[in-house]
Amino acid sequence: MVNGYDGTGAAGLPAATRELIARRDRALGGAYRLFYDQPVSFTRGSGVYLYDPDGNAYLDAYNNVPSVGHSHPHVTDLVSRQLATLNTHTRYLTDGLVSYAERLLATHTVGSLTAGTPGQAMFTCTGSEANDLALRIARHCTGATGVIVTANAYHGVTAALAELSPSLGRGVPLGTHVRVVPAPAPGVNFTAAVAWAIGDLERHGLRLAAFLADSLFSSDGVLPDPPGFLAPVAEAVHAAGGLYIADEVQAGFGRTGTHLWGYQRHGIAPDIVTMGKPMGNGLPIAGLVARPDLIEAFGRQSRYFNTFGGNPVCVAAATAVLDVLEAEDLPGNAQATGTYLKDAVTRLAAASPVLGDVRGAGLYLGVDVIAPGTPGTPSPAHAAAVVNRMRERRILISATGPHGDVLKIRPPLPFAREHADQFLAALAEVIEAVLDHRV
Amino acid sequence: MVNGYDGTGAAGLPAATRELIARRDRALGGAYRLFYDQPVSFTRGSGVYLYDPDGNAYLDAYNNVPSVGHSHPHVTDLVSRQLATLNTHTRYLTDGLVSYAERLLATHTVGSLTAGTPGQAMFTCTGSEANDLALRIARHCTGATGVIVTANAYHGVTAALAELSPSLGRGVPLGTHVRVVPAPAPGVNFTAAVAWAIGDLERHGLRLAAFLADSLFSSDGVLPDPPGFLAPVAEAVHAAGGLYIADEVQAGFGRTGTHLWGYQRHGIAPDIVTMGKPMGNGLPIAGLVARPDLIEAFGRQSRYFNTFGGNPVCVAAATAVLDVLEAEDLPGNAQATGTYLKDAVTRLAAASPVLGDVRGAGLYLGVDVIAPGTPGTPSPAHAAAVVNRMRERRILISATGPHGDVLKIRPPLPFAREHADQFLAALAEVIEAVLDHRV
Repeated sequence: MVNGYDGTGAAGLPAATRELIARRDRALGGAYRLFYDQPVSFTRGSGVYLYDPDGNAYLDAYNNVPSVGHSHPHVTDLVSRQLATLNTHTRYLTDGLVSYAERLLATHTVGSLTAGTPGQAMFTCTGSEANDLALRIARHCTGATGVIVTANAYHGVTAALAELSPSLGRGVPLGTHVRVVPAPAPGVNFTAAVAWAIGDLERHGLRLAAFLADSLFSSDGVLPDPPGFLAPVAEAVHAAGGLYIADEVQAGFGRTGTHLWGYQRHGIAPDIVTMGKPMGNGLPIAGLVARPDLIEAFGRQSRYFNTFGGNPVCVAAATAVLDVLEAEDLPGNAQATGTYLKDAVTRLAAASPVLGDVRGAGLYLGVDVIAPGTPGTPSPAHAAAVVNRMRERRILISATGPHGDVLKIRPPLPFAREHADQFLAALAEVIEAVLDHRV
Repeated sequence: MVNGYDGTGAAGLPAATRELIARRDRALGGAYRLFYDQPVSFTRGSGVYLYDPDGNAYLDAYNNVPSVGHSHPHVTDLVSRQLATLNTHTRYLTDGLVSYAERLLATHTVGSLTAGTPGQAMFTCTGSEANDLALRIARHCTGATGVIVTANAYHGVTAALAELSPSLGRGVPLGTHVRVVPAPAPGVNFTAAVAWAIGDLERHGLRLAAFLADSLFSSDGVLPDPPGFLAPVAEAVHAAGGLYIADEVQAGFGRTGTHLWGYQRHGIAPDIVTMGKPMGNGLPIAGLVARPDLIEAFGRQSRYFNTFGGNPVCVAAATAVLDVLEAEDLPGNAQATGTYLKDAVTRLAAASPVLGDVRGAGLYLGVDVIAPGTPGTPSPAHAAAVVNRMRERRILISATGPHGDVLKIRPPLPFAREHADQFLAALAEVIEAVLDHRV
């Protein structure tokens, strides 16, 4: 795994950390991974900082789940009050769920670019459950099974999603009805690739149920540009009778700055939109918004009950997130700080032999790390060195992309210019330092 | 759906409730179902009571998720404090997750009836995710695909689980690798049925990956007895190379009174145990405990990261649940009140022409409703009448079983003798009333 702990850095860790890792290994076993050559332990979080047991502050430039900031008091307040009052499920009536759904739906344009046909919402606990449900709906409504994803896509951990998440690696086989297309990188005719995959499905006697894509292509290396390139893809998918599912688990809730939803940067109206990670600032709430005719057709054949999905406590968290996004204009900040950060990193990259292309939208940046002085040659080793040396300087990022060569910079949205400056100063030092040492 | 709202009772509802239902229908669409001929709206919960907007108290004899009681102050306290402090994921070290996992593991006996080989734990957000993961592990470790479930089983909402959950109805087809056996009702040789299904899989060129069963067979109509009947089933499953997965989403966390886990009533050591609903008293936390060799083999090939799974806030809720179960001896109360309730309902049934067999373990009771005076003839209509008339008397239960003819009585665990008496008085009236009226 990119940025996974493999034990080689254990000797440099405090005894208490080593002991906690040993207990964790015994209790949780081998499918769990820790970040970093030297894993880090946290006991407190506030705003864009996390604190270790000794009280050291780490600048968080990685975590998109605590999107409105760690331990935001408005989230704590609404959730705590709801917990003390009522927590139940969707087979009884509660007002909060309906009001939240209405508010969420007002931000989406599904099925049509005009707001005349509002979607309907369904709630789950995780992005995986949302994508899994979207897939069930798509297959039910199209009567087809084929799915197209990108080469290093990640859409979740259920059995049905693992078989269409190539980024899980060769240990997890893809489904026979899954087709993989190259990621929309420069030089790739993405629309043609999707059209080819549709034809290949048909040649195998299969039809397209859905094209499923993260609107930022995060695990493919962060590929947001140019805005609009997904519009002809959506046309090709619809022409083949398939549905366009926009996976907004990474891009949604204002992350890209200019729009609340990543698909809106591309001027498309998906058939289904899935949401997750930042939705409840860390409380497990996720869901989808879809064309009402799809939900109607699915609902006629199948009830859907998710025990914790849409419960009042998680809905309180989600409500607080929308409150804070609006009150603090966090999409505006994502745009302002994101542009500042991207421009500054682009300047650093232009002057550094170890950094290549810089991409991003709002507060989601991807930075290619290359073999020093060798543009076009990815260097996962240098990327890992940058990530681990940033961690030594108490700044959290990670890496992504098919080679693990792309720095993933994705802070909580209250990340301000002063935090960007702290980040940039450290990055400038680190990219010098990794040149001076063998990595 | 059993006990689903179909709109025919709308005229009798307050205008505010009708309006909320209309808004809900517009926003959430047709896959969502409400309970009761006249749905009920709640604004507050405390202990074993829920309160409607007018402040009327409803005795909760149905909800097993708020297992330690609605709005329990210890859960609210631990969760609120954790929310204000830290909420992050499992790729950083946190002590609470490891300590909770150790505490949970100490209660289980997986793989072997001796406690010498403790299992390992993995955390998800929902029981569906836990069962889906258990299935992935089982298929990975056995190299087989076949799964055996009971005739009206329900194991979750993901695509992989929907195709082995016959209770979802004919609109949701079963998988070709899924075999269904009759529920373990009187007159059924359950072990022979499982052995036959194993042979049928083999005749189709398939091998058994797992036998998956709710240890209480809740959706099959609540079939707990006699304790021990699952032991020869586990032997047959193991002889065929399959894994025994105990789905403890319904039976776990002390519900059955005598044991913390339903499988322990049967004296078996499953290969994988899945948990959910009551684990965090309504906060979304679920997971599994499995033989370490299985988790090791799975983890070698596949990482598993569940964004919200095992997060500090949900772990705080789960920790609080174990605290309260111990401090208030809720399993002891489940046993004491459950026995009292079952004995009393059995006496009512013996004297009533509309009630048949009464089954149960701890605070999970199933009561057959029959066509008046016709033992052996299920009457879903009379069951629905009982459920709805109990709701008129502000007592919450529901119905289950393949015909929807079995009263499902499954209160929060602090349900005391005084609550049982309130329940019994109402039930005695209702079973008289449903005889006097056409249903």
